[in-house]
Amino acid sequence: MTAQPAGKHQRGELAILRHIRSRAVGSARALRLGIGDDCALLRPPRGHELAITTDLTVCGRHFRLDWHTPEQAGHRALARGLSDLAAMGAQPVAAFLSLGLPRQLANPRGRWESSWAARFLNGLLALAATHKTPLAGGDLSETPIPLADIVLIGAVPAGKALLRSTARAGHLLYVTGSIGGGAAALPHFDRLAKQSKPSTTGLNPARIPKGLSQLLARHLDPHPRLAQGVALRKLASSAIDLSDGLSTDLTHLCEESRVAAQIDPALLPIHPGASLHCALHGGDDYELLFTAAPSTRIPKRIAGVPITRIGRMVPARPSRPLITLLMQDGPQRLKAQGWEHFS
Amino acid sequence: MTAQPAGKHQRGELAILRHIRSRAVGSARALRLGIGDDCALLRPPRGHELAITTDLTVCGRHFRLDWHTPEQAGHRALARGLSDLAAMGAQPVAAFLSLGLPRQLANPRGRWESSWAARFLNGLLALAATHKTPLAGGDLSETPIPLADIVLIGAVPAGKALLRSTARAGHLLYVTGSIGGGAAALPHFDRLAKQSKPSTTGLNPARIPKGLSQLLARHLDPHPRLAQGVALRKLASSAIDLSDGLSTDLTHLCEESRVAAQIDPALLPIHPGASLHCALHGGDDYELLFTAAPSTRIPKRIAGVPITRIGRMVPARPSRPLITLLMQDGPQRLKAQGWEHFS
Repeated sequence: MTAQPAGKHQRGELAILRHIRSRAVGSARALRLGIGDDCALLRPPRGHELAITTDLTVCGRHFRLDWHTPEQAGHRALARGLSDLAAMGAQPVAAFLSLGLPRQLANPRGRWESSWAARFLNGLLALAATHKTPLAGGDLSETPIPLADIVLIGAVPAGKALLRSTARAGHLLYVTGSIGGGAAALPHFDRLAKQSKPSTTGLNPARIPKGLSQLLARHLDPHPRLAQGVALRKLASSAIDLSDGLSTDLTHLCEESRVAAQIDPALLPIHPGASLHCALHGGDDYELLFTAAPSTRIPKRIAGVPITRIGRMVPARPSRPLITLLMQDGPQRLKAQGWEHFS
Repeated sequence: MTAQPAGKHQRGELAILRHIRSRAVGSARALRLGIGDDCALLRPPRGHELAITTDLTVCGRHFRLDWHTPEQAGHRALARGLSDLAAMGAQPVAAFLSLGLPRQLANPRGRWESSWAARFLNGLLALAATHKTPLAGGDLSETPIPLADIVLIGAVPAGKALLRSTARAGHLLYVTGSIGGGAAALPHFDRLAKQSKPSTTGLNPARIPKGLSQLLARHLDPHPRLAQGVALRKLASSAIDLSDGLSTDLTHLCEESRVAAQIDPALLPIHPGASLHCALHGGDDYELLFTAAPSTRIPKRIAGVPITRIGRMVPARPSRPLITLLMQDGPQRLKAQGWEHFS
């Protein structure tokens, strides 16, 4: 709390900020002023609204030093925010990063470039570059454990954003890609980390068995469905991203739209190696869950990703569960059992 | 990392989010959609740009459980962001809060309303209401120590934002209000906390000696200079907020504008009870530091706050320090010695 002499600034906050600023060279027409002032300045594209989301990623909760390489932790932190933009049909305009770091992860006595913090930024900025998203600002503080709050600003034509609250009874329910893979990967991380030497830079990729690499990639390398979200602006009646698990995220969609849902488990695009339980309740898939009117023709693939119908929306009634699973031996109530903090 | 059954949700993330959402009832014309979807939606006022800033507030760095009441910690977290908007001449449009909490501060077995987290929100939302700033979204996670990343979005007429990079040699240097009080208060907090019973809800206001209450309020109850920032859009040539200390923040202004500065210490509006050292290097004042052309008439007060000329900008030269202090016994170099993380 007391101001300390800054000394030579060799590895102080200002030096780290200078490094980040030198790397954050991406630009977007909408970004008038990036890192370097009290605020960044954005000039939103004409006729557009801005979609804004924040995602707090915390070591031990959202990633682990012994499971994830620093690059993977950075990639996943940004992917969470981009996935929220995708669910609104928005295109990214700028990202902001508030980064909390223990001193040793900034490598105070060694080369910054090889520090955990620099490698985390590399992973984050690589995904940002893929989606042409400039890093426009942020903050930095010393913290006991590493953590990152990612803010994403996106643009969407005014009035065209996909919402959670606009699903209607009778509409059909769809999901992009496959589900359950993110959660099915977790026990393997636990086992592989226990078999390895203690690490603060994640699992050695060379020690991941070939047969598991595709499943583990579902967790390590999520691809936010931005192109799909943009295409769905003209097709879908509502959307949400699958970050907390199908049962929890579909509950949000039903509650906000005041409708109920029926899922046919035989239709679910379960990722190879994942169980039905993982597909229903596992988080971390970063696919899109959306509804569309039955008269809307939904393509089998959008921008290369398969689209699968998994159920339909029905009127909400006091006597009816919010989500019903149409099992072969009769309907079953599906409760929200996905990820929830403090539970 | 593994999904857990959410159980009864009595004090889970969803219940806390519902509570926050019920409190975040403020609205602004620009905010089309607040808490409750994947993103918030903003429709920026016509002819305006958006100013965006993030400020990470961490327990043990920016506040202490035994010094600050939860309300004061919440007020200060938001004040930091509002002060950044003030420095750009922007008016707040929306705030976002990513909150990290240890489980016990969410009061899992007691009443939410009396929890540290609920009281933190009370302090934050009271200041937000003062400045008509709706809480439009955010995130929540369990963390080992409490922390808050505050995102502020403001609006400023296009091309009219106050920048750090536009000070010119010959321009005069001014500061709002008084400086040094925030830092001068710190040793008193340390002493008073040691005299009290260990507390996680700050110093008991009844135990603060009357003679100290005004000084301590400089730290506990900062007033972001938003009205002054708006007025300065027509008067100032550059601005920055004083959060890290005059020597550090003026260094930023000089570096971004590629000019040098001279300060007359006899002119500094030092807060009663503060030393010259506190005024030069102490942070936490949340006043505005700005420049104006010598031909611009600067009023003695703006919106009730005194304005003081403290020096002038001069050309940057290799042989000249970035900041010179004009002491009676001759000029002295002033180095940036304000707050810096990781130093």
